[in-house]
Amino acid sequence: MSERSERTRESFRELWASLLPIGRERSTGGYRRFAWTPADLACRAWFREQAERRGLRTEVDRNGNLWAWWGEPSADGPRAVVTGSHLDSVPDGGAYDGPLGIVSAFAAIDDLRARGMQPARPLAIVAFADEEGARFGVACAGSRLMTGALDPARTRELRDIDGVTLAEAMAAAGHDPTLLGRDPERLRLIDTFVELHIEQGRGLVDLDAPVGVATGIWPHGRWRLDFQGAADHAGTTRLPDRRDPMLPFARAVLAARDIAAGAEALATIGRVYVVPGAANGVPSAVHAWLDARAAEEDAVIRVVEKLYAGALRAAEGHGVGVAIERESWTAGVDFGPGLRKRLAQLVAPAGRTAAPALPTGAGHDAGVLAAEVPAAMLFVRNPTGVSHSPAEHAEEADCLRGVDALATVLAELAG
Amino acid sequence: MSERSERTRESFRELWASLLPIGRERSTGGYRRFAWTPADLACRAWFREQAERRGLRTEVDRNGNLWAWWGEPSADGPRAVVTGSHLDSVPDGGAYDGPLGIVSAFAAIDDLRARGMQPARPLAIVAFADEEGARFGVACAGSRLMTGALDPARTRELRDIDGVTLAEAMAAAGHDPTLLGRDPERLRLIDTFVELHIEQGRGLVDLDAPVGVATGIWPHGRWRLDFQGAADHAGTTRLPDRRDPMLPFARAVLAARDIAAGAEALATIGRVYVVPGAANGVPSAVHAWLDARAAEEDAVIRVVEKLYAGALRAAEGHGVGVAIERESWTAGVDFGPGLRKRLAQLVAPAGRTAAPALPTGAGHDAGVLAAEVPAAMLFVRNPTGVSHSPAEHAEEADCLRGVDALATVLAELAG
Repeated sequence: MSERSERTRESFRELWASLLPIGRERSTGGYRRFAWTPADLACRAWFREQAERRGLRTEVDRNGNLWAWWGEPSADGPRAVVTGSHLDSVPDGGAYDGPLGIVSAFAAIDDLRARGMQPARPLAIVAFADEEGARFGVACAGSRLMTGALDPARTRELRDIDGVTLAEAMAAAGHDPTLLGRDPERLRLIDTFVELHIEQGRGLVDLDAPVGVATGIWPHGRWRLDFQGAADHAGTTRLPDRRDPMLPFARAVLAARDIAAGAEALATIGRVYVVPGAANGVPSAVHAWLDARAAEEDAVIRVVEKLYAGALRAAEGHGVGVAIERESWTAGVDFGPGLRKRLAQLVAPAGRTAAPALPTGAGHDAGVLAAEVPAAMLFVRNPTGVSHSPAEHAEEADCLRGVDALATVLAELAG
Repeated sequence: MSERSERTRESFRELWASLLPIGRERSTGGYRRFAWTPADLACRAWFREQAERRGLRTEVDRNGNLWAWWGEPSADGPRAVVTGSHLDSVPDGGAYDGPLGIVSAFAAIDDLRARGMQPARPLAIVAFADEEGARFGVACAGSRLMTGALDPARTRELRDIDGVTLAEAMAAAGHDPTLLGRDPERLRLIDTFVELHIEQGRGLVDLDAPVGVATGIWPHGRWRLDFQGAADHAGTTRLPDRRDPMLPFARAVLAARDIAAGAEALATIGRVYVVPGAANGVPSAVHAWLDARAAEEDAVIRVVEKLYAGALRAAEGHGVGVAIERESWTAGVDFGPGLRKRLAQLVAPAGRTAAPALPTGAGHDAGVLAAEVPAAMLFVRNPTGVSHSPAEHAEEADCLRGVDALATVLAELAG
């Protein structure tokens, strides 16, 4: 192993080990780093400490995103090259989704500095706030507020499961929620944004490559399905007299899978809320959330329409009402082909002309920023493809290839 | 309307109106009177106040059941005639399930006293603690502790959703949980127990009768089904790579209905818990509770076995594990035919020789006591059959027929 590789490994290991214990749930081994909770604030404190150790100036932007600067940006100077990802997690998420991009960014800057690089452009690491939306139900809140894709007034009023608004949670964490909203000054500072992320499928395994470049992000959305029946006693109400919403809900779960499979789409029901939830009672209502994605918008819409029509048919025979509401929609993203081809060549493995390029069904802050600035993504191989789970994993050797690739890209883009 | 009927109506209305607001949830109109919560304690305070107004001595037995005595019981005197029911509710339950039996008991005693009755036996009204089991998951806790059907040490350790033990909840309400356990002295005081209850189906509607007598209670049980898969990202995990527990769970919901229908049984899934419950993630586990009942024990067991076998088959194709655990079991009850025939004749409507007799699929404290003392039940007609719901209802005229029937029965039994 070269001296440079050893140095990078030490830097990566130290960063990784210091972040790993924060917000980990003992019972599951998964992470519960929800936006603006103590676990999230501890992650943010970790970020500041790592930046300060390296003499990088930290700041929080209007939307709660956390920045660390190597070199000072200015409105009339050269625009900055920005890298980063997020620190928050889904419930019982893995260690890599988000944090790998931040840890790799610090390690890449360590490498560039050790090599004596003097970048022509300012460089920044950003930790976007509330990427997963686990607490307030809206994904990529920090980046979407920054680009104006989210309405600040409505966002402030989002509530978590305890009824706490996003504004209250931010204020309690010391951030002024009246500042939320599109941030054109900050967007003007950015020349290019590059996000490194663990792959969330097995694409790179099949392509036998440790690092790849994203072509784009599938369009995706979230819908709430409300099945409204009537509460009744489980021991006395005859089956034909029931208006049990659980039955058409179950049909919808099975239909969602079949319809998605037939449309080369993905459909998932991962959140269900049964009212009143008594073990000895026919429920009055079942609320279920559908996540649907596909390569093309039309395919997603067709899946949802077909599913809703089927749910209505299934519910009719039970005297159950069904309503559907779209809770979020994220248009598909194509990362600019010029930038991504340049990156694929830069990070090509030995003996190949380019790293592989692949799409993803997962939303990312880089996808949000792509609407405003040149943006790209690097993926690091995930041997099992498992993500949003405590079992999410990447081999250290692949993570180090990721750091190396990111350092190469930053050096090239920042000059 | 006779003077006596008018008096009973006034007495019933006053009792009913004073109890009605306690523990009612504004948003649903349903009741949340869970054992040992402030709403339950307010109901118990109401009971004491009604007893005191009537000069009935109140006391709490070892297991937290609340008694009001007309005449003093003694070990060597005549045994007592006891009536009553419970005051606690399921989540968003109706106003009648339980309270109708208590209110009718007070109104019946008012009637007997107004008529100058001097009972040869002591009479008591009892409000059994925690009949619904909504908070700690075990139904008929107060009566089952009294008869020794529940182990006191294990019962003390039952926990509610916030982790509070039953012992802690009782102690906080001023009741010493070390006293819990079989109470032979109290059981020896009882000659007969009669519980009046709103019917929880439409049996009396079909029979065109305001009041009926219970033949027995169906055997019933509760099982927890655990579907264990693997958490994954909803946007990146290909459908065939998933181990999604939601799919075999949905098959089990549909199978439960079909199997029960084929076996003249009842099967209900009213409580579901999805882990981790993220809208953008394949869940790792689905926990579901099955309530199954039928006229015969064998039929219940066959339904559960068939359902479990089907769930295993459905899960296999998805790489999902299924486990089943019986959480509770209540054997069937046949109320003594002598006593119930006597009651049916006593409360026969004009022009008939007997009130109708009918079974029920719902558990009751009377069913628990039937193992120890002669016990019987009177049902009051439920025009919609709806129960465990804010829409649960009985017509006032039918309630008054119930009070009249109960007064007749108490007068006959107490001499």
